[in-house]
Amino acid sequence: MCFAIKEMVVRGAPSIGVAAAFGLAAHAVRLAQNNPPMELMKTSLQAACLQLQATRPTAVNLRWATDKLWQSLFGDEASMVDARSAAAMAVRLAETMLDDHIAVNKRLSDFGAELIKDNDSILTHCNAGPLAACGWGTALGVIRSATMRGLNPHVYVDETRPRNQGSRLTVWELHQDRIPYTLICDSMSGHVMAAGKVQVVITGADRIALNGDTANKIGTYNLAIVAQFHQVPFYIAAPLSTVDGRILSGKEIPIEERNPQEITDFGTEKMAMTGAHAYNPAFDVTPFRLIAGIITEYGVLRAPYTVSIKEALEKAKLG
Amino acid sequence: MCFAIKEMVVRGAPSIGVAAAFGLAAHAVRLAQNNPPMELMKTSLQAACLQLQATRPTAVNLRWATDKLWQSLFGDEASMVDARSAAAMAVRLAETMLDDHIAVNKRLSDFGAELIKDNDSILTHCNAGPLAACGWGTALGVIRSATMRGLNPHVYVDETRPRNQGSRLTVWELHQDRIPYTLICDSMSGHVMAAGKVQVVITGADRIALNGDTANKIGTYNLAIVAQFHQVPFYIAAPLSTVDGRILSGKEIPIEERNPQEITDFGTEKMAMTGAHAYNPAFDVTPFRLIAGIITEYGVLRAPYTVSIKEALEKAKLG
Repeated sequence: MCFAIKEMVVRGAPSIGVAAAFGLAAHAVRLAQNNPPMELMKTSLQAACLQLQATRPTAVNLRWATDKLWQSLFGDEASMVDARSAAAMAVRLAETMLDDHIAVNKRLSDFGAELIKDNDSILTHCNAGPLAACGWGTALGVIRSATMRGLNPHVYVDETRPRNQGSRLTVWELHQDRIPYTLICDSMSGHVMAAGKVQVVITGADRIALNGDTANKIGTYNLAIVAQFHQVPFYIAAPLSTVDGRILSGKEIPIEERNPQEITDFGTEKMAMTGAHAYNPAFDVTPFRLIAGIITEYGVLRAPYTVSIKEALEKAKLG
Repeated sequence: MCFAIKEMVVRGAPSIGVAAAFGLAAHAVRLAQNNPPMELMKTSLQAACLQLQATRPTAVNLRWATDKLWQSLFGDEASMVDARSAAAMAVRLAETMLDDHIAVNKRLSDFGAELIKDNDSILTHCNAGPLAACGWGTALGVIRSATMRGLNPHVYVDETRPRNQGSRLTVWELHQDRIPYTLICDSMSGHVMAAGKVQVVITGADRIALNGDTANKIGTYNLAIVAQFHQVPFYIAAPLSTVDGRILSGKEIPIEERNPQEITDFGTEKMAMTGAHAYNPAFDVTPFRLIAGIITEYGVLRAPYTVSIKEALEKAKLG
């Protein structure tokens, strides 16, 4: 599972969180075959958590899901007595996490669909659809809900360099759903907006700070700046679990740097001469000032985000 | 030559202008072998001009260079008496145009280098170096001049989707000149600027309107918006022949739309599923308000551009 997440076989913040939980559960089941003492289960699964969390540093869901599963099994309030029941519990927890994620995404998609008007064109970046989010979607979930309401949205899809999740995944998902779309390069958003062709921008998120600053796929920040310049509202769609309650601003979010070959090569094709020097940050941070709203399963949060995010987190704790 | 320009074997506004002039000259030489009447030379070369101008609609240099050559041979002030001397004249004119272009680029590069401070990092988009501009360069010409003055510039190179002139040409040219550079995706400029890593942005231009609105490779507009957001000055470097004296604003500049396959495929690799719907404008227009200055062979033109461009055009007319 570490390999699958690191090499982006599984990607998308919600999907890697749930996949990591299933990875932990599978590890627990294998360990439990020899019915080891609980102390061994506990430390071995803790090591597995850390190993999984180290695969990709930016998305908070990975840490959230693995920590939550481990806490449920071994935390102060846990009551597991033997390895086999702990393993069975781990599997049930991962399954529940998957079901919950889909339910949460559907709820936030319904709130998001309220923001869409008939025949709107929506621009999105990267992939925040079923493949990224356990089967339903966040940004694309909103678009799917709008489509189900008969609003006929059209989608501009940023190809999303360098891994091209837009051209490779989002285009395919929209095609499956028969939602009309137009693929563009990331650099074309301003040209398209200047022509009045985009009414709303929606992207997913990998980590949200308490002040609303949001880390998402590299290029999201440029897109948010360009949207503001054209007075096109820029929304984030993400479950509340994407909020990292430990950090106050985006400055504290670690930005993963990936292999420069992702920029200099595409499959077997060279895009630059061998040995070309490149810089490949995988994410950027969009400051809260550029965000019109954060679409969550507790409604669309608005500025001031320090207040609205705190209120939503409290609701979540109660509910 | 039409094939070479249309399929981008030769590209870059100044290079395609001069290449088209040589194409015309070659056509004249071939025609002249049978020593036809001047009227035939005139109409045949006029047809060739139109055919060359139709290959790519946005860059003005193509029209400028071919019109200028034809006018010199057959315009009201021309005094050609037979086909062979006209053909010889065409070759000399194309050669002079090439020499002039290099001299002009060197002059504008010297003016541009005045804007660069020691150890500045300069971000550029597309390719405006020797390959694009007859052997010296406009935006890269400025950087080459700054390097020769010992200012140690470092260059961030936008890969420039979808044709990747940044990764394929600019990186190679900088490597030849031993100028340090870092290749990035077009969507990373904001992330890099937010970190304070870019002091100046310089790009070339394909056509400049009388009010300063500038058409250049798609993505230039996004870059100019992102630069303004970070208060990084955004400069255009282009010979004065890039100004289209017939148009008042960027709205009148035709934007070439190219094959969507440039976005969905890279060489033999598929970037999106077969049949994916894509939109591929090859240029965009950056409004004059986002431009800190236009670096020409008559100095760095500043706002109000309607005045400074007019003055420069008058200087150019005086010679």
